Amino acid sequence: MNDMRLLLLSNSTMAGEPWLGWPESHIRAFLGAGLRRLFFVPFAGVRMSWDEYARMARERLGQLGCSLVSAHETTDPIGALGEAHAVVVGGGNTWHLVNELYASGLMASIRDRVLGGLPYLGWSAGSNVACPTLMTTNDMPVVQPPSFKTLGFLPFQINPHFTDAQPPGHGGETRTDRLMEFIEVNPGVAVVGLPEGDLLRFEGGNLQLSGSRPARLFKKGKEPRDVQPGEPLDFLMA
Amino acid sequence: MNDMRLLLLSNSTMAGEPWLGWPESHIRAFLGAGLRRLFFVPFAGVRMSWDEYARMARERLGQLGCSLVSAHETTDPIGALGEAHAVVVGGGNTWHLVNELYASGLMASIRDRVLGGLPYLGWSAGSNVACPTLMTTNDMPVVQPPSFKTLGFLPFQINPHFTDAQPPGHGGETRTDRLMEFIEVNPGVAVVGLPEGDLLRFEGGNLQLSGSRPARLFKKGKEPRDVQPGEPLDFLMA
Repeated sequence: MNDMRLLLLSNSTMAGEPWLGWPESHIRAFLGAGLRRLFFVPFAGVRMSWDEYARMARERLGQLGCSLVSAHETTDPIGALGEAHAVVVGGGNTWHLVNELYASGLMASIRDRVLGGLPYLGWSAGSNVACPTLMTTNDMPVVQPPSFKTLGFLPFQINPHFTDAQPPGHGGETRTDRLMEFIEVNPGVAVVGLPEGDLLRFEGGNLQLSGSRPARLFKKGKEPRDVQPGEPLDFLMA
Repeated sequence: MNDMRLLLLSNSTMAGEPWLGWPESHIRAFLGAGLRRLFFVPFAGVRMSWDEYARMARERLGQLGCSLVSAHETTDPIGALGEAHAVVVGGGNTWHLVNELYASGLMASIRDRVLGGLPYLGWSAGSNVACPTLMTTNDMPVVQPPSFKTLGFLPFQINPHFTDAQPPGHGGETRTDRLMEFIEVNPGVAVVGLPEGDLLRFEGGNLQLSGSRPARLFKKGKEPRDVQPGEPLDFLMA
């Protein structure tokens, strides 16, 4: 568990900026000089083909000196995972991702490898599945996966793209309303509302929040509160 | 099937207006003078107790001359359903609603009774479950129901609270993005994006859109298009 290394981004892209632009320095630091061969999981892609998603990721992460094999490019994804220096799980639709992780057998294999020390980089849906379940996804349930359980590297939930902004005059629930419903039904589980431009890094047994904005913490029985980048977050791992 | 009567509202309340204010005349016309005893389903309520939800519904629908029994107020909900003149399914969290509909046995009983002619009034989550599945919900999956299948009165999906407005600078998916993902994965199923203040009424074998705004229609292989209140929609029932 203390060998586990995670870099979990709220989002890939800030509006108007290049893809994986804002987190580039964090990704470089996380992968360092040694993690050259990446195993990529494109399964969250729905309207973009997995070929196209893998091509984008190969080009972008190639700029950071990495090579990449995508889970859908090999007849033996579990074997390819075994040869990788890090696993990268891209964002998109969380439901589609979870369904395909189960169908491919990669849910169990990725869990085992990452718990054993294989570094894990995810964004958006890829960060959500590092949690116990997919229950704090913002995505539309376009497919029914066999279970809501996910990789469970963290004992709490991440809500990616966290915002409380609402289109004017709209009567639907705010994100806070939705997360308050989650903790009402799941009182033992905390949620970190991770705004765009923020990330969580777990390494050496320590959990850190980085980014330009506070994250919001939700737990049943407590008032939601903001946590600032740099504040200790290890209590969330207990 | 031609005996089926449905009144499906996108939302209960326009911002700044009283609860169930905008659809009042539609509800009056739908219930008419004869449907005096209502069976209410409060299961979508999560942060509001079912007692409180039933109290609100009893007061509001009482103003329209109706009495009401809530599913949670009786040890024999299926029996109480059998004595009702109409069933009313309130909004809230769709996942919670679906889970409790299965747990109570009401999913099958309501389906049978409504297909046999018992009038059905729903809003938001209550409109969503009139569709084949819950897959076009906007709600957070706070609980895992035994199935995504719902009442299936309509062969298409409703997306309640439909809007394409997005908080400025937010990089997450728009509602249209989400619904385009749904039709990509479910190419045989149409979706009606029903904006707040709109409703669908099915009666005498005819489907009608009412309200102040166009609804948006999504189907794989076709450009999304707006349909105006009053346009014939029976092709959606085919």
